[in-house]
Amino acid sequence: MTDTPKFTQSRRQFLAGAAVATGAAATGKLVHAQAASPDPAITELQPWQQYLGPGVDNAPYGVPSPHEAHVIRRNVEWLTADTVSSINFTPLHELEGIITPNGLCFERHHSGVADIPWADHRLMINGLVDTPMVFTMDDLMRFPRENRTYFLECAANTGMEWRGAQLNGVQFTHGMIHNVVYTGVPLRLLLEEAGVQTNGTWLLAEGADASGMTRSIPMEKALDDCLVATHMNGERLRAEQGYPVRLVVPGWEGNMWVKWLRRIEVGDMPWHHREETSKYTDLLADGQARRFTWEMDAKSVITNPSPQAPITHGPGPTVLTGVAWSGRGTIPRVDVTLDGGINWHRARMSGPSLDKSMHRFYFEFEWDGRPLLLQSRAHDSTGYVQPTKDQLRAVRGVNSIYHNNGIQTWAINEGGQAENVEVG
Amino acid sequence: MTDTPKFTQSRRQFLAGAAVATGAAATGKLVHAQAASPDPAITELQPWQQYLGPGVDNAPYGVPSPHEAHVIRRNVEWLTADTVSSINFTPLHELEGIITPNGLCFERHHSGVADIPWADHRLMINGLVDTPMVFTMDDLMRFPRENRTYFLECAANTGMEWRGAQLNGVQFTHGMIHNVVYTGVPLRLLLEEAGVQTNGTWLLAEGADASGMTRSIPMEKALDDCLVATHMNGERLRAEQGYPVRLVVPGWEGNMWVKWLRRIEVGDMPWHHREETSKYTDLLADGQARRFTWEMDAKSVITNPSPQAPITHGPGPTVLTGVAWSGRGTIPRVDVTLDGGINWHRARMSGPSLDKSMHRFYFEFEWDGRPLLLQSRAHDSTGYVQPTKDQLRAVRGVNSIYHNNGIQTWAINEGGQAENVEVG
Repeated sequence: MTDTPKFTQSRRQFLAGAAVATGAAATGKLVHAQAASPDPAITELQPWQQYLGPGVDNAPYGVPSPHEAHVIRRNVEWLTADTVSSINFTPLHELEGIITPNGLCFERHHSGVADIPWADHRLMINGLVDTPMVFTMDDLMRFPRENRTYFLECAANTGMEWRGAQLNGVQFTHGMIHNVVYTGVPLRLLLEEAGVQTNGTWLLAEGADASGMTRSIPMEKALDDCLVATHMNGERLRAEQGYPVRLVVPGWEGNMWVKWLRRIEVGDMPWHHREETSKYTDLLADGQARRFTWEMDAKSVITNPSPQAPITHGPGPTVLTGVAWSGRGTIPRVDVTLDGGINWHRARMSGPSLDKSMHRFYFEFEWDGRPLLLQSRAHDSTGYVQPTKDQLRAVRGVNSIYHNNGIQTWAINEGGQAENVEVG
Repeated sequence: MTDTPKFTQSRRQFLAGAAVATGAAATGKLVHAQAASPDPAITELQPWQQYLGPGVDNAPYGVPSPHEAHVIRRNVEWLTADTVSSINFTPLHELEGIITPNGLCFERHHSGVADIPWADHRLMINGLVDTPMVFTMDDLMRFPRENRTYFLECAANTGMEWRGAQLNGVQFTHGMIHNVVYTGVPLRLLLEEAGVQTNGTWLLAEGADASGMTRSIPMEKALDDCLVATHMNGERLRAEQGYPVRLVVPGWEGNMWVKWLRRIEVGDMPWHHREETSKYTDLLADGQARRFTWEMDAKSVITNPSPQAPITHGPGPTVLTGVAWSGRGTIPRVDVTLDGGINWHRARMSGPSLDKSMHRFYFEFEWDGRPLLLQSRAHDSTGYVQPTKDQLRAVRGVNSIYHNNGIQTWAINEGGQAENVEVG
């Protein structure tokens, strides 16, 4: 365990539990536990030690502890006109590690959640192919499959923050993202089965839900690392994540990962459908728009402390944590500042570092109880460094919705409460 | 994606979906999708394309698709006398990748599932330490934490199979295992805080539930890689997995990973409590018993096909998959046989290879429709090779319950059904 830092100062005096300084240690013999403190939570028998708890034999698919009922996806009511077309955000402030539990994965739907039985679904490949194909789901399970851990971020994540700090919670500013292990068939194998013709240089992915979302994808990406995925974190896709099958386009805009994948058409030019013209283009200050900005740039955010997760223990040893990711590779480095950028420190990375996956970082420090301005800054494996929001605005203006990967600032006051702020 | 095999033979003729051989491909222009087959599932509009589906705004913690209601933990009713002390098995035959979804993780409880609020729980460290300590859960969150992916296997997994093939399903023969990402504080840091005395060479871990399970753990292991874990797969522990805190003892017997961890006592000799004398010792043929058989040996099993997951598509391209793990390291190699061990083939590994974590393997082959005898054999990073059950019996006899890591055989008949068998 070489990646855990050594603390020279003991935490003992800061702990809420009653640490005993009497040194009531026995010598040489086994001793029964003596009450080490007057804390009744440890000196008195608790109910759970005395009574049988309920079993889980009637919980064939387990659920979280009732004590964790506050850990949920949340909606921003004013964001869309109707729940038919809506977004539910990941509670990043409550999570740890790099895996997002399936039930907490953010989702975006445009016509509710399609209800498609496994046996009834079909996936067609047509267009510029030698042999148009129609696959059942059982057909797909006869192709070789892969397991890959990838983040999926909506390009509109943090989109409400272009003109300044707006939403007070990391769940809302950054929660259009999740990170799961996908199991799926490489799209390349299915295209090889159909036989892509030499002029087949683009493909259109189309969904089977009533909104029939479509996106154009260049053939190089399709043949590279795209998956036709059936499982997430070991089990079949959740309905709101596209059951029974979705496209996985590693590192690229979430909207391209078409859910309830129904059809892949091969063509020789992009289709310029709504989701890549009216939407998912970036309007610049001069009135022109960037299009086909597929790759999700390196980004990071501190998840705790944050507005929904204040510091409640007062001064002393404090753990700061957050996540970082890049659509272009891994995250070898994250910097953290406690003073709005005057001094930067190297954060500690922990857990597997996987290509185009979320990464976890920590920074442990001694809080003196004074106000803080917390920021994190990601470096990805290409050498790209996460910019400030002002740097982004200088290039892009403030009229675009997408690809806001700017550095996030949380102001911590002396009470430990956090607020979304901008610093010049 | 270099680890996907190249198939020289097209699967086309084996697919259930209607593959069209007419070559109805257009040239040069974008074409609208033409019905490529007479399959009404693709030619007719489906309900989910026409009507709005339900949203998930009222599902703040998402659940699996109703079409996956068969994917559940299951109980073996006759195994224990009462549901108060019971086991629920992981449905391995339905899972993919290496992550076990939290709701499907096998669990074993002895007095139901303790219900302990986060704020009320205390963890004590006492015995041969300079300063006995009592931690609240919020105290623990102020120590540096790590993220590690580990399997947890009950030493009794496959225990019913010592005397021959008994249970007809991989969920029951091998389902006392799960694999999740733990977030927790290295136990070493907490012991350093308390200050282990020079004669402190063992520790006793004790649970807070009514059964108050205890196990002795040698200090070297405690200081090596044990974690005091609060999270699994990104969210706080499930109640049946020990909420709010459990011990993690990587690669070692599941029973040592005490749930609802209440106390750690440091001593100078093992305690020889019930769970390491009456239980969790291996009775040999000569009447002597092995004790302190802590490490889980390398093991593998084919999860699909298996009795609960027959081959339903008939002859042709077939995907075989399974899992492998070792308490001593990684799994660099798994061999598979289709004929009960006459010919062995190298399986394809897919996904991250992590120390003391579950690994996923595949073997794609052309099934000729004739009976098969499927087996898998794991090699771990120490060079250890998974033995046959007869090899184990020759050494250990048939009177022990624990540590049955022998090779598993499934017999496949011409109808694709699988049965648990033994072969000489």
